Amino acid sequence: MGGDFGPHCVVPASLACLAENPLLRLALVGQAPLLEKILSRHSGVDRSRLHIVHASQVIGMQERPSQALRGKPDASMRVALEMVRDGRARACVSAGNTGALMALSRYVLKTLPGVDRPAMMAALPTRTGSCYLLDLGANVDCGAEHLYQFAVMGSVAAEALGVRRPRVALLNVGAEDIKGNQQVKLAASLLREARAINFIGYIEGDGLYRGEADVVVCDGFVGNILLKSSEGLAEMVAERIRGLFERSLPARLVGLLALPLLRSLRQELRPAAHNGASFLGLQGIVIKSHGGAAEEGFQSAIRRASAEIRENLPQRLHGRLEDLLL
Amino acid sequence: MGGDFGPHCVVPASLACLAENPLLRLALVGQAPLLEKILSRHSGVDRSRLHIVHASQVIGMQERPSQALRGKPDASMRVALEMVRDGRARACVSAGNTGALMALSRYVLKTLPGVDRPAMMAALPTRTGSCYLLDLGANVDCGAEHLYQFAVMGSVAAEALGVRRPRVALLNVGAEDIKGNQQVKLAASLLREARAINFIGYIEGDGLYRGEADVVVCDGFVGNILLKSSEGLAEMVAERIRGLFERSLPARLVGLLALPLLRSLRQELRPAAHNGASFLGLQGIVIKSHGGAAEEGFQSAIRRASAEIRENLPQRLHGRLEDLLL
Repeated sequence: MGGDFGPHCVVPASLACLAENPLLRLALVGQAPLLEKILSRHSGVDRSRLHIVHASQVIGMQERPSQALRGKPDASMRVALEMVRDGRARACVSAGNTGALMALSRYVLKTLPGVDRPAMMAALPTRTGSCYLLDLGANVDCGAEHLYQFAVMGSVAAEALGVRRPRVALLNVGAEDIKGNQQVKLAASLLREARAINFIGYIEGDGLYRGEADVVVCDGFVGNILLKSSEGLAEMVAERIRGLFERSLPARLVGLLALPLLRSLRQELRPAAHNGASFLGLQGIVIKSHGGAAEEGFQSAIRRASAEIRENLPQRLHGRLEDLLL
Repeated sequence: MGGDFGPHCVVPASLACLAENPLLRLALVGQAPLLEKILSRHSGVDRSRLHIVHASQVIGMQERPSQALRGKPDASMRVALEMVRDGRARACVSAGNTGALMALSRYVLKTLPGVDRPAMMAALPTRTGSCYLLDLGANVDCGAEHLYQFAVMGSVAAEALGVRRPRVALLNVGAEDIKGNQQVKLAASLLREARAINFIGYIEGDGLYRGEADVVVCDGFVGNILLKSSEGLAEMVAERIRGLFERSLPARLVGLLALPLLRSLRQELRPAAHNGASFLGLQGIVIKSHGGAAEEGFQSAIRRASAEIRENLPQRLHGRLEDLLL
């Protein structure tokens, strides 16, 4: 029910994913009459793999997590998470209120043993492919111990998602040992001891986009600022490119020829292509889709959930974390 | 003597600035034989407005600020700052070691009354023009009081540099009151009390690039990460655009037509166009040029210094800070 477009985006994205993956089964959790109405506009829906679970309440995008926790037992988000807890679903994907989703996920699913705080992780495009960044905003104040846990979780998750011996780096304001704040320095010394992690040291903001690491770790304040400023810059560049080809008649003509190419670039760089942030460290799979993501972005989030189910990510994390954290 | 290209970049940039501004006089501080040698390659140099000040030592780009402070009394950076302190120069521009430049600036020039810590401020391009961001890395651990001081200094500086009633915002992970860490929340409440500042509240990373504020305030850790990740992303986009037009023969042909346009875009977005970070809060003008900046970037830094001299920025800051801080 959440996100900027609600079920108007989620329903068509779900149908597209069902069409591309014959093993997928989806439950749409939310206000049944609305969901049925939107579904009725589509023909040929295979209802054997798609069912609707009614939930009477909706958590608003501006609602405080504490309100969402206490006041709405029948919120769609909560009902979906309870389905994961009870084994009636393997993963929950939501475009709703991030803070509420995290609070409810912790409350309903609980964290894995040894994990103090779950983290949000997403993939960013880099020069050489992509890199996983965490935390993206679930934890705005982090100690060294939390950064260490994020690094461990990010490394295990990246490996499960196909990266061999992921290079793990701590985001910092310089590459030298003396740079950084206390938390980062202490986290680095913890990571240097952890032999099972391929810790490559500090990375700067530009190194991330140069593809120097597979997993980049920072606190949620920094990660959120990095992610959103990158989105803003990418949007600005896209707008400037459009403007560039409108400056003069010759520019317009070149623009007509170049636009299909530039459109494909925008596609590559847009967050939509990488949409879907994993909540790591929970006893279950939860994927947060960007609130502003359209149909294609939500499909990416569902695919991310499928990949984590296939790799049994929480189980793998559980096993590795026992060695590394406890 | 500093930066990736040393005097090989600084000398031609200086000559270009002297040619464009007949009121400018420059002193090149560093190893005189090397500087003379590079100068001798250029013809028609007006030595009445350009003189060389010999300094025998150089601070390395990786040297610790504490070493630079203690061990090198005749470092070019230090000699240049002493010229500003003694009134023999109105501003110091350097492409050298940032930490050393900041430490020496504080030691040689001292801070303005009421300022605990100087801050680094630079302009970033936005959708609607540009915005000033501070701190960029001088202070990796900041309390609310420091953020408040940065906001005051940024506001006064932006006004002096031509922005009418600058909109000042605090960088945060959300626009709502409940978002953020303790320092940011406390700084916001201090700024709401300061009537002389046009404080517009929190801003997110994407809002910065949408041009929602004229001055954006954050701690040096966050500011540095934002700046460098933006540089990295801009470089990556430029590279992808080049790659895009090499994919096929038709793409190459379109590329030949589009490249002049795209080059101008790159120019607009490249940090070089906005190069030159001001050290605010000192009893003198110090501009840090990006270590990787080439000739054109260093020219921007010299121009920034000229503008601050014209506006008598430290004096203006001094007057306003007395009202706002003391």
